[in-house]
Amino acid sequence: MSGDVGLYEGLTTTRAIRRFTDEPVSDEDLAAILFAATRAPSGSNRQPFRFLVLREGAEEAKALIGSTFRSSWAAMSRGQYARLTVEADPTSAAYRAGQAMQRFVDGFERIPVVVLPVFIPYRGTDITSGASIYPACQNLLLAARARGLGGVLTMWHGAIEAQLKTMLGIPEEAVIAAVIPIGHPEGSHGPVRRRPLAELVHEDRWDAPAPWAVDPPGTRYTR
Amino acid sequence: MSGDVGLYEGLTTTRAIRRFTDEPVSDEDLAAILFAATRAPSGSNRQPFRFLVLREGAEEAKALIGSTFRSSWAAMSRGQYARLTVEADPTSAAYRAGQAMQRFVDGFERIPVVVLPVFIPYRGTDITSGASIYPACQNLLLAARARGLGGVLTMWHGAIEAQLKTMLGIPEEAVIAAVIPIGHPEGSHGPVRRRPLAELVHEDRWDAPAPWAVDPPGTRYTR
Repeated sequence: MSGDVGLYEGLTTTRAIRRFTDEPVSDEDLAAILFAATRAPSGSNRQPFRFLVLREGAEEAKALIGSTFRSSWAAMSRGQYARLTVEADPTSAAYRAGQAMQRFVDGFERIPVVVLPVFIPYRGTDITSGASIYPACQNLLLAARARGLGGVLTMWHGAIEAQLKTMLGIPEEAVIAAVIPIGHPEGSHGPVRRRPLAELVHEDRWDAPAPWAVDPPGTRYTR
Repeated sequence: MSGDVGLYEGLTTTRAIRRFTDEPVSDEDLAAILFAATRAPSGSNRQPFRFLVLREGAEEAKALIGSTFRSSWAAMSRGQYARLTVEADPTSAAYRAGQAMQRFVDGFERIPVVVLPVFIPYRGTDITSGASIYPACQNLLLAARARGLGGVLTMWHGAIEAQLKTMLGIPEEAVIAAVIPIGHPEGSHGPVRRRPLAELVHEDRWDAPAPWAVDPPGTRYTR
């Protein structure tokens, strides 16, 4: 494990990992990342969630998710993501990103662990209820990084959520909040591309600039 | 700043901080925590959010939030939180927690920084849209910790959201996803109390035990 990364560095250099080696994820690593996930805050410290960890005994569910991800990506790669595929210059970074996504969906069933964070509603399911589960999902991804693992928060399961719930015995009223594959990264973590801070941060009033909100030197941007 | 804490330790020992010293938060610290916040994942890396940082020029908004928090806590401390106040043994930890909440709301306007993470809807505002803003909020709280600061994710602003949006010029369709006070902690971070892992983690099927999901020795539990 790469246990030496500092907190701040970890926050700023944890990437979405979509390529994994075949190495299994140990029980110890899983316990550690789930422990860290559940240290996150939730409304009134209620922890209105469960984490369903799909491993060897959940082949059918993993196959269903994999199959859906492949058809979702097939549609997206011709539609809103055509810039990463059919329209992309094969020597470009965009094309490589498209290829990485294709490999991710093609090999989905070989990813050793898939975590389903499941939200148990107690007062509706609007965006603010997400404050009681997505901090835990982020802790899970960061803890994976701390243990030398990696993962990605995916949201492509909407069309099969009801089917997955039936298959896995998840109560009807619960919400599968995400699908998070976890494994040993092929490739590495590092700086991520985001929008410039000046576009995202205001001081004291909407649209007012925050002159101090400056990206560090060397920051790479989206678009 | 306490820059030496490791990623994993930071994840498992970052507490909700509700007591702050009067020390101002520097521009450098703010830039660093907002940078870390915006490194979090969001759907399609779209970053459908802004962070509105309330400081000296937003006294009116801070007063409105403080006033609402005080009336919310006044009602809760007689209602669902009576176990922390009127019903609590004054020598108990529960009573001290209630007192800390009272101090928090009483001194709200003196907290140096209040961050409003604002979600800009692009495909509804159900719980899954929270996946595109609450990971950033968690990064913000963890980055505060890394910089020697602290904060707390609060969700008590629902009743004044419309009024706050008008006051601050926030677009009507946007959602104030939380209110996050930030400052230099009085007191310290450390292990948090949560539910036992065995109640929250399942393997391969709902309600099936995950025998490896064991809390580390010394873990403290809620309830």
